[in-house]
Amino acid sequence: GSGRMGVTYDNSAVDKMAFTSRIRISFSGSGETDGGLQFGGSIRADNAPAGNAGTGGSVFIAGDFGRITMGDTSGAAEYIVGDLHGVGLTGIGDLNENAYLSNGGAVARSAMRYQYTLDGLKLALSIDNPGGGNEVYSIGAGYEFDGFGIGIGHERNNVASANHTIGYVSYSLSNVDLKATYGDATGAVSAQYGLSASATFDAVGVSAFVRRDFTDLTHYGIGGSYDLGGGAALKGGIVRQELAVGDATRADFGIAFDF
Amino acid sequence: GSGRMGVTYDNSAVDKMAFTSRIRISFSGSGETDGGLQFGGSIRADNAPAGNAGTGGSVFIAGDFGRITMGDTSGAAEYIVGDLHGVGLTGIGDLNENAYLSNGGAVARSAMRYQYTLDGLKLALSIDNPGGGNEVYSIGAGYEFDGFGIGIGHERNNVASANHTIGYVSYSLSNVDLKATYGDATGAVSAQYGLSASATFDAVGVSAFVRRDFTDLTHYGIGGSYDLGGGAALKGGIVRQELAVGDATRADFGIAFDF
Amino acid sequence: GSGRMGVTYDNSAVDKMAFTSRIRISFSGSGETDGGLQFGGSIRADNAPAGNAGTGGSVFIAGDFGRITMGDTSGAAEYIVGDLHGVGLTGIGDLNENAYLSNGGAVARSAMRYQYTLDGLKLALSIDNPGGGNEVYSIGAGYEFDGFGIGIGHERNNVASANHTIGYVSYSLSNVDLKATYGDATGAVSAQYGLSASATFDAVGVSAFVRRDFTDLTHYGIGGSYDLGGGAALKGGIVRQELAVGDATRADFGIAFDF
Repeated sequence: GSGRMGVTYDNSAVDKMAFTSRIRISFSGSGETDGGLQFGGSIRADNAPAGNAGTGGSVFIAGDFGRITMGDTSGAAEYIVGDLHGVGLTGIGDLNENAYLSNGGAVARSAMRYQYTLDGLKLALSIDNPGGGNEVYSIGAGYEFDGFGIGIGHERNNVASANHTIGYVSYSLSNVDLKATYGDATGAVSAQYGLSASATFDAVGVSAFVRRDFTDLTHYGIGGSYDLGGGAALKGGIVRQELAVGDATRADFGIAFDF
Repeated sequence: GSGRMGVTYDNSAVDKMAFTSRIRISFSGSGETDGGLQFGGSIRADNAPAGNAGTGGSVFIAGDFGRITMGDTSGAAEYIVGDLHGVGLTGIGDLNENAYLSNGGAVARSAMRYQYTLDGLKLALSIDNPGGGNEVYSIGAGYEFDGFGIGIGHERNNVASANHTIGYVSYSLSNVDLKATYGDATGAVSAQYGLSASATFDAVGVSAFVRRDFTDLTHYGIGGSYDLGGGAALKGGIVRQELAVGDATRADFGIAFDF
Repeated sequence: GSGRMGVTYDNSAVDKMAFTSRIRISFSGSGETDGGLQFGGSIRADNAPAGNAGTGGSVFIAGDFGRITMGDTSGAAEYIVGDLHGVGLTGIGDLNENAYLSNGGAVARSAMRYQYTLDGLKLALSIDNPGGGNEVYSIGAGYEFDGFGIGIGHERNNVASANHTIGYVSYSLSNVDLKATYGDATGAVSAQYGLSASATFDAVGVSAFVRRDFTDLTHYGIGGSYDLGGGAALKGGIVRQELAVGDATRADFGIAFDF
């Protein structure tokens, strides 16, 4: 399980200062068939009803052929490229996260993803569960070597005729990680792109990101953490979010813990 | 916990091919009083809110006097007679299941069932929790001997003045089970009746059913399974469902697992 | 986990006699940082979604400075003064419970409470998470010595300009507990006040209360329990509830168990 408690600030909200807390319980299980096929799954207590419906948590089978995951799992492009480094106790709006067509948007649907890993090479294919003829396909590939990482993904929504191609480059140096992502989608006002960094110095961690989204709004944030040991850490962050009209300054600070 | 992942087909659906997955976590507990009365209950994570309200999961007390169960539990007739053998990974619409008045229908209510077992003899009484004056009573009795089984149940809804009498005969031979059920209800277009079989040959299992429902529609299905060991099995099935207009062919295939 | 099953009676309900059952699964976890700060939380399976949102269950940090709790936790006044002794298997409407402004009312919100304990002295401060400018503050203090207890709490809703001051006195003698509470709130028709007692004699427990609420209606109840050992107990009670028009007589009886 995990929990957190802290305070939040948002100068664009009615209640500028508030506090935040949550507690989550996670379950996971796995097994192996006589033939060596691995299987299992995971779900949280709070979204167990979605897990029963296939839209929360996920299940997998894995073997020499690779791994197939079903449920609330990332599409291939998101699995390969992912997001920029996040900040704060709560994510502060998760503005570091890239937008994807798969397993998101207006309809909450489960996704099926196949992935294959060979040394530093990762390949992935995915499809969202069809809904009223609406299907989202995705493909992605990435390669990591000597601390460098590079990857690209493509996804297509067959009904909206929307395409999204997104890539990343990253570099990891002992205690510092750098990442840049760039994504271009049919009909979007802007490309989405950004840069982020994360570093750790003993118990201290810092991270920062800047990201422009599909609507041509730019957001940036910086955050820090301090490991208290025993599964607890102080975390905080501050984010500048560009809105269609004006900006919002949002921040949080508190303690996160695992037990 | 348990999970499953696979593909489904339904020629009457907008999206004929789809995939299906789910993950479930189950809890159960029990104890014994100083006087030797056993008590306990069970609930899944995904319907825990219903368990708190008494309409999901169930609790029991048991002793020499028999066993009393409360919650989302079958009425006496359903407890004695039950359903025909099912097919497939997901049950494919559960068309092998008989319709009962108790603990079902328009209103989700909890049921209380008392049962007493003496060697092969089973007796059961039940009542649904009253709702706006609406009560459903049920009584049933069954007997099993030398692989033969026979049982009958009756249930009555006091507001709808609906009665339902249903019986079964079954025969179990080493690795083959056969079952037939016949139920007649007030005002139904047809009786509900059917036949089913299930057999296992080492790791392979097969099952089949044919069943006519209260609306005079006939459904049949056949399915198979293959035990992979370690708690996992391949399962699949195909069902022909008669609809008011036309028929549907539905199928599924995938892997089911316990962990 | 815990469960219960029994019967209920309410002469003012459409269905006078009914049965009641439930099953609950509880999770709790805790840890300690390298610096000796304790942290943890608890949540039930059935309100896990609220736990994820911060409005169910709770998390805490504790140390020499005291203890901070966030989530679905009592305000300071309720933490100090609490309720009268309850009766029955189900609480029978919980008419022994005092009304508080914090963490209640029309809007379900999380609360943050700080408490400090020094021998018999308890101090507490709390604030509800603000919602649309609406904030509820509370402060309370209590002292226990030689079986005597005394405490007072005050709470204020800044939008409704509502104030509530409530106090208690209690006395505990080996196997008997007595308690009286008195609370006065802005604009209420009546003060809320009452008296209750609870006593245990080996396996037998009895409790009773009488309480007038803010709307000048008076309720009383008496209940008993018998410990069956192994975590199970028989419990029952009867309550006379004054309604705006007429009275209701409500009762319950059954078995409660932990496992």
